Amino acid sequence: MVENMYSATGFSHPNIALIKYWGNRDAKLRIPSNGSISMNLDGLYTRTQVWFDPQLDHDKLFLEGHQVAGTAQKRVSALLDRVRNMAGFALYARIQSHNNFPTGTGIASSASAFAALTVAACCAAGLELSQRDLSRLARTGSGSACRSIPGGFVEWQAGDDDKSSYAFTIAPTSHWELVDCIAVVSQDPKHTSSEDGHVLAESSPLQTTRISDTPGRLEKCRQAIKKRDFDALAEVVELDSNLMHAVIMTSNPPLLYWQPATLAVIQTVKEIRTQGTAVCYTIDAGPNVHVICPKEDTDYISAQLNQIPGVQKVLTTHPGGPARCIIDEDESITSKSSI
Amino acid sequence: MVENMYSATGFSHPNIALIKYWGNRDAKLRIPSNGSISMNLDGLYTRTQVWFDPQLDHDKLFLEGHQVAGTAQKRVSALLDRVRNMAGFALYARIQSHNNFPTGTGIASSASAFAALTVAACCAAGLELSQRDLSRLARTGSGSACRSIPGGFVEWQAGDDDKSSYAFTIAPTSHWELVDCIAVVSQDPKHTSSEDGHVLAESSPLQTTRISDTPGRLEKCRQAIKKRDFDALAEVVELDSNLMHAVIMTSNPPLLYWQPATLAVIQTVKEIRTQGTAVCYTIDAGPNVHVICPKEDTDYISAQLNQIPGVQKVLTTHPGGPARCIIDEDESITSKSSI
Repeated sequence: MVENMYSATGFSHPNIALIKYWGNRDAKLRIPSNGSISMNLDGLYTRTQVWFDPQLDHDKLFLEGHQVAGTAQKRVSALLDRVRNMAGFALYARIQSHNNFPTGTGIASSASAFAALTVAACCAAGLELSQRDLSRLARTGSGSACRSIPGGFVEWQAGDDDKSSYAFTIAPTSHWELVDCIAVVSQDPKHTSSEDGHVLAESSPLQTTRISDTPGRLEKCRQAIKKRDFDALAEVVELDSNLMHAVIMTSNPPLLYWQPATLAVIQTVKEIRTQGTAVCYTIDAGPNVHVICPKEDTDYISAQLNQIPGVQKVLTTHPGGPARCIIDEDESITSKSSI
Repeated sequence: MVENMYSATGFSHPNIALIKYWGNRDAKLRIPSNGSISMNLDGLYTRTQVWFDPQLDHDKLFLEGHQVAGTAQKRVSALLDRVRNMAGFALYARIQSHNNFPTGTGIASSASAFAALTVAACCAAGLELSQRDLSRLARTGSGSACRSIPGGFVEWQAGDDDKSSYAFTIAPTSHWELVDCIAVVSQDPKHTSSEDGHVLAESSPLQTTRISDTPGRLEKCRQAIKKRDFDALAEVVELDSNLMHAVIMTSNPPLLYWQPATLAVIQTVKEIRTQGTAVCYTIDAGPNVHVICPKEDTDYISAQLNQIPGVQKVLTTHPGGPARCIIDEDESITSKSSI
């Protein structure tokens, strides 16, 4: 029996995949079929409070103030079980989570949710894990959550088991002042979750080729980031996004996350680039379009995107830091980095 | 010197590919990378008049009444050279061609154009070729034109040389009362012609996989047509269309023929099917969407498509017959089938 129960709050940014994760080698442990690279998105965050409470007879999950049961609650409890197991106690928790951005629409809400949950739960349980182990743990909740644990530009090494599959920083936030202008064309939750989409990946005749072609794209992306070569980044990022959606739209059954306005944004991005401005697009498993540009062009790009019919708003985000947590002990608050 | 010069008029329907042609094994002879299956589209036609005229010092091409030079004229002259070579004379021709549908927008205008040109030129030159040889000849002008020579449901056997690469009827027009409701979302010529797109196919990392997966799709399509199994047809036709566009959007440079309204039509088709009506979509190298349904649902489907923002009009077409030609001799007109 643990005597001093903590309440802790975790903060995490979602991340935009520059080289995408789609499909698992091991679905249970979320060992991905291919490595991936992402950038954390400062300005967007999930805030999650975890409070292990001896009064509870089961975990209670509240999203945006509303209690949630079903699949979401089971996924959260499964991650908490791992934490309880490591910490050596069996108390249930009250979990309260809030996003300051649309949920379930291709802005990586499950990534930031499980990253925030991971750091909050570990803090609350008094566990002091390395960033690598936090990343591995977050991965078991939602694969891409492992990339929201470290800060800046991040690579998730696919690995081949629970131990070797984790994410790490390949360049800090200060390395490159890129901006992700997210053109929000829908705030409705998508029909098919990424979770279910990953399962279908193998049913596409194109998935094997996409996977086998990934090492080359990863290397191009790493080099583009290292050299701050925007044109090289744009080429590989758009190709990789199109490859993922090619797999998605040829799976069995086929999925289609794009909406008409998604395509209007793609066309605008291509036109702006043709006119000489550095910009590229990438789309996660949802209709919203991440439009990436150097910081100095943010206002121009954002204004152009806002003019597109069907674009509801544009969220402007910068390279973001790592997940972190704050422990509430009595009345005092101790800020504590997760790394 | 030939003494009796003919003026002949060829008529041909465009065709909609159910299993697509994309990429050549031999670009010069247009030997395709994979076999394909299509349906001719009655209601749409190209009418082409060819008149070998001793007064001319070069071929003169008129499209919709306007004289055209450049690439189009060279492609036409190259086909006429083959005809002149077979017929054993060297006269130049005046060619007048008219489409009753939008040109260069993914409604196979080059297919019907070269099929009509082929039958007209052969008639005018007094050549009596078999349907197979007409198909081979049309193929050298525009690959998919070989499928507009025979009638009804047509398969183009890829073959491996000029002799073995031709199209033939696999089911007559009367076999299955399908309707292709073409949702026209743009009548502007596409940025990149199919001709140029074929060249890029090999630069996509997905093309090899698409090609190697084709025999299975061809067989599913043949069986679906044979058994008039609409659900089976819908599944393979949509998959095949998505596979081609997957290759197109991942080529180097990538192309994107879809427009926002293209996606709106796709979504509507999926919704209508979810509600229990048999319907499927397929998209050639252009923004317009071919929506295929059993004849009895034509009015309903057409009405639904007409309500989609961005759909300019809906062309309703039925399984069409073979290309044919009419020879004008003096004042008398002799109707003559090409087969």
